[in-house]
Amino acid sequence: MRRRLIDALEGQPVDTIPIWLMRQAGRYLPGYRALRARHSILEIARTPDLACEVTLEPVRRFDVDAAVVFADITLPFAGLGVDFSIDPGVGPVIPRPIRTAAQVEALRPFDARASVPFVGQAIERYRAAEHDRPIIGFAGAPFTLASYLIEGGPSREYAETKRLLYAEPRTFDRLLDRLTEATIDYLARQAEAGAAALQLFDTWVGTLGLRRYERHVVPFLERLRDGLAPWKRPVIYFATGASHLLERAGRLGFAALGVDWRESLGRLRRRLGDGVTLQGNLDPGALLAGRATLEAEARAVLAEIPDHDRHVFNLGHGVLPATDPERVNALVELVHEEGTARR
Amino acid sequence: MRRRLIDALEGQPVDTIPIWLMRQAGRYLPGYRALRARHSILEIARTPDLACEVTLEPVRRFDVDAAVVFADITLPFAGLGVDFSIDPGVGPVIPRPIRTAAQVEALRPFDARASVPFVGQAIERYRAAEHDRPIIGFAGAPFTLASYLIEGGPSREYAETKRLLYAEPRTFDRLLDRLTEATIDYLARQAEAGAAALQLFDTWVGTLGLRRYERHVVPFLERLRDGLAPWKRPVIYFATGASHLLERAGRLGFAALGVDWRESLGRLRRRLGDGVTLQGNLDPGALLAGRATLEAEARAVLAEIPDHDRHVFNLGHGVLPATDPERVNALVELVHEEGTARR
Repeated sequence: MRRRLIDALEGQPVDTIPIWLMRQAGRYLPGYRALRARHSILEIARTPDLACEVTLEPVRRFDVDAAVVFADITLPFAGLGVDFSIDPGVGPVIPRPIRTAAQVEALRPFDARASVPFVGQAIERYRAAEHDRPIIGFAGAPFTLASYLIEGGPSREYAETKRLLYAEPRTFDRLLDRLTEATIDYLARQAEAGAAALQLFDTWVGTLGLRRYERHVVPFLERLRDGLAPWKRPVIYFATGASHLLERAGRLGFAALGVDWRESLGRLRRRLGDGVTLQGNLDPGALLAGRATLEAEARAVLAEIPDHDRHVFNLGHGVLPATDPERVNALVELVHEEGTARR
Repeated sequence: MRRRLIDALEGQPVDTIPIWLMRQAGRYLPGYRALRARHSILEIARTPDLACEVTLEPVRRFDVDAAVVFADITLPFAGLGVDFSIDPGVGPVIPRPIRTAAQVEALRPFDARASVPFVGQAIERYRAAEHDRPIIGFAGAPFTLASYLIEGGPSREYAETKRLLYAEPRTFDRLLDRLTEATIDYLARQAEAGAAALQLFDTWVGTLGLRRYERHVVPFLERLRDGLAPWKRPVIYFATGASHLLERAGRLGFAALGVDWRESLGRLRRRLGDGVTLQGNLDPGALLAGRATLEAEARAVLAEIPDHDRHVFNLGHGVLPATDPERVNALVELVHEEGTARR
């Protein structure tokens, strides 16, 4: 197995900077688009052969240093007894949002083997098909999952989430508690199936200020960290639109901090030291530019951590559908070349 | 006129901390709801008598230190020749988004007197009706207006904005240039009509990293600042979800920096010094909690700037529709009492 990504996450020496891209298996790729013309996201995610095929496409096409299992952070909702769908152009839709203590108590006990067997199976099929590049498993972080369940989908203001958090903090914490336990089980199953690293997506946590993050989120992230420790997999914690929380998040004890394109990696490295790997953080929009602009933007990201120590190159968010795959190829080559040259 | 707000914005001594609330004239108020049952947002905004009535409701009901003219940041689009609507639950919708150099060049010359006469008229009617509290005028900041025009509405990823910015930077800058000129004219007309302070809403600028903000946004904000200088009105610059940009934004030379609930006012004051007034930043969600929680949260905001110097109390975002007006009343009283007691 190519260990470059795992070594960088664990702070071990590497021959060059590893790179993978969030949503590297996505709509910008022809194979994925062809499959999506016939199947929904949930059909693909729940069919291990299809999920494996989608997972393999970018790894076969580009020299990225890892695969990412094709799945969705909402998949565990079914195992909690929550109906949901993924609507094109909208995202997850939960017809009956969870907003009361009674609803939280009525959530079903979660068992990843029973309710999301296909994710582990997709990882196992990938490992049988491809022995070179490690595969990353992932899950939504508890706050982000909770905000979907409470709002009933993506939200701009998170008014219902805020109401529950401020007006019924015990109910809110109990929901986070249930989601934390489910997420530990879900990620443990992915590790068991062969995921070499795990990423937690805390996509919406930036809607909280630092005091509320400390009070309602950090304790559950610490429990997650401890619950996953026996599996000895490096965990990447990725929060978007959360520049105000990153210094705290970088001290949670996860191996790596995913950073969106807004923040300066150099500034974070100076504040956090080199005890944590930084992953990121090219603006996905730069892949829509001409090659010269893309290269300049990528070099600017590389220059943020001049010694290249504990840096995993990635975008600050997922690959945009309008991206030309050849630009992705150029980016991967540039990062590997520059990462070697400067060492 | 009660000068408390203006004095705090200009760094003059005040008897207590001034407070006003973004969207203080909104759906949580019965008078506004009754009017909205009969009229659309645009109808109200374009009818000075109705806009004045909506503007007055919170000033008559609460002891807030300013009124805010009822308007929408998209109103100037019509004067640029851009069709748009405001769709309930969605926000602004622009059927034919602006994405090419030819479209930018085809924008009509903007004349606030001709295309948005009703905003100045609403301010004039307010001043005729209410002599006590000053009225705040406002506009969208150029980047935020541009992102609406380019995306065709609110967006999560700003893919088209990023494409234009990275792939056709000259076209992007030319669009910002046109919007900057229009915004100067629009705000100047509001000042002329009697607005005592002006707020710039840069709602979506947080989607840019610092380098792109510096390159594509700062020069236009500086031009806006200089263009408005002859009117001698304190200007509040408010960017949401932009914690990573606030230190730079606080040095733009505007009188005040609006801060959303994510960021710590104390940290910003320490970094920026007291040459700029900080406005904010209670989480609007705290108004949905019980009174004890609301008071604790408001006191936590007040404690961030213990000397109360150059602080204008506000929410970190607009009042949520589910808010009980009595909570707003309690908040206004608490801020005025605490602001006095500690001086």
